[in-house]
Amino acid sequence: MNKISNYISFIEREIEALHLPKAPENLYDPLRYFLQLEGKKIRPILTLLSSELFGEKKENVKHAALAIELFHNFTLIHDDIMDRAPLRRGQPTVHHKWDDNVAILSGDVMLVKAYQHLSETNSDVLPEVIKLFNKTAIEVCEGQQMDMDFEKMTNVSQDEYIKMIKLKTSVLLGCALKMGGIICKTSDENCRLIYDFGVSLGIAFQIQDDWLDLYGDQLKVGKQTGGDIIANKNTLLSILAKENANEQQLLELQTMRNMANPLEKVKTAKELFDQLNVKETCLEVVKDYHSKAMDSLSKIETTKDKSTLISLTDSLLNREF
Amino acid sequence: MNKISNYISFIEREIEALHLPKAPENLYDPLRYFLQLEGKKIRPILTLLSSELFGEKKENVKHAALAIELFHNFTLIHDDIMDRAPLRRGQPTVHHKWDDNVAILSGDVMLVKAYQHLSETNSDVLPEVIKLFNKTAIEVCEGQQMDMDFEKMTNVSQDEYIKMIKLKTSVLLGCALKMGGIICKTSDENCRLIYDFGVSLGIAFQIQDDWLDLYGDQLKVGKQTGGDIIANKNTLLSILAKENANEQQLLELQTMRNMANPLEKVKTAKELFDQLNVKETCLEVVKDYHSKAMDSLSKIETTKDKSTLISLTDSLLNREF
Repeated sequence: MNKISNYISFIEREIEALHLPKAPENLYDPLRYFLQLEGKKIRPILTLLSSELFGEKKENVKHAALAIELFHNFTLIHDDIMDRAPLRRGQPTVHHKWDDNVAILSGDVMLVKAYQHLSETNSDVLPEVIKLFNKTAIEVCEGQQMDMDFEKMTNVSQDEYIKMIKLKTSVLLGCALKMGGIICKTSDENCRLIYDFGVSLGIAFQIQDDWLDLYGDQLKVGKQTGGDIIANKNTLLSILAKENANEQQLLELQTMRNMANPLEKVKTAKELFDQLNVKETCLEVVKDYHSKAMDSLSKIETTKDKSTLISLTDSLLNREF
Repeated sequence: MNKISNYISFIEREIEALHLPKAPENLYDPLRYFLQLEGKKIRPILTLLSSELFGEKKENVKHAALAIELFHNFTLIHDDIMDRAPLRRGQPTVHHKWDDNVAILSGDVMLVKAYQHLSETNSDVLPEVIKLFNKTAIEVCEGQQMDMDFEKMTNVSQDEYIKMIKLKTSVLLGCALKMGGIICKTSDENCRLIYDFGVSLGIAFQIQDDWLDLYGDQLKVGKQTGGDIIANKNTLLSILAKENANEQQLLELQTMRNMANPLEKVKTAKELFDQLNVKETCLEVVKDYHSKAMDSLSKIETTKDKSTLISLTDSLLNREF
């Protein structure tokens, strides 16, 4: 994974070289602050790896990669306001450190900055790249709206939930990868496959995240076990439980939702979920999407080595099991 | 001005034809709601008039014109949250009718929609059009930040204030016009001149707005006389007053700012401003920028008729004096 660390450093250097203006301070200081918070840089790395897969130098895709990372940061700043999140990557969120107005406006300017970098893409592929980026950006907003709507709903189906996480997080991974393909002028079929690979990978990763929240090693995951249960959040676990429960178990799930003691609540949820085979069923869904991702990747026709993308996938999807 | 009404109808039909998706409702209903509020549509009309000036059919610039209008609507939705404004165009603002989260996210999607239309521009001019649009969008955010910063400052200079209104509102008029020029492939010099015309027109219009707030015919302007004075807002009037005041008058201005009775406050401000010749000085500034605008317009080399742009300018800048 040495190549990945090199790519992370490359992206970090590019971000440092952005040279944001000094004034207005309340507009640009939050951007500088947010961009230096440590992140995994998965999305721009996917663009770089995709261009490597299709034989292009990373210099030619660096603006697209940067655009994806800036876009991702824009969504985080605005999502944090909407979710009233106090922390991001272990540090105060922008709206918490400054205020909502500063977070709204610096998020806006981050989005425009993303387009500014995207526009540096070679003009012969620019229309196609920007079309994909626009479509993805709209889908991400739709996913965020669905996520907020789901918070007020008690009955969300498995299909609806997977559609939401696909839009909110997975299409951006697909977009990051496909942009590499478009810029390298690979075949339409390869573009479709690398996009599907990213979307399946994203869905698997997100569902794994739901799983880890309850079944993960607390030390490795770095979060309180069962946080989603305590917050009564709709996740694939709770949806599977409801879909498989009989009337008596549905009542017990409802009683569990209203429990005040967090430890007791998580314990009760685990017991109910065990009866309903939720742990294994959820893991099957992760494995299904993982297989789909690997299947798409295997069908891509290229003379280049796929091993870095494969090991990145493994490192993302085998954090625990 | 029959041509202008035709252009307004043209833009309104294009907006109706946007066919926004039905779901998620909380994302798209606010967009539909906001776009049907009556507006002057000045910005897209400028793009259409500019393309007419440089000999292109309006079909070829309609996407750019629509992009400018969508961008303007995005800024209004987000600005209304930041200003806690309850009304826009006489109707409830998005954050007031729904909530802040809905307004943030539907504003975001409006901005992406703007880029989606912009991307429909002919690919040979797309890189230049999008570069101008990005630069302008960033300047508009900077202007909004300066405006918010000025609310907390007591000493804003005339230059700083004009820079703020230039960024917040005028560069978008320049951009709307120059996009027409770029798409019609007119000379760089013509592009520069039509941009400068728009910026000067925008500054003149905005300062006229400050002037009308205190000296306008209340019935024609449709707002409470002296609203800016009552709210202690920095405008060119208050800045000119401060810059021309002696020590005694500065104290009186300060006393006026702290007055509780609105009618008395406005009356006192008017008396002080009369002593300081503020009304006439401010009007001179409007006339200066009006002249600059007309000078730029006159230098544009084209065989086409400039009369519609001239009469639009006159109608925008001679509402009262």
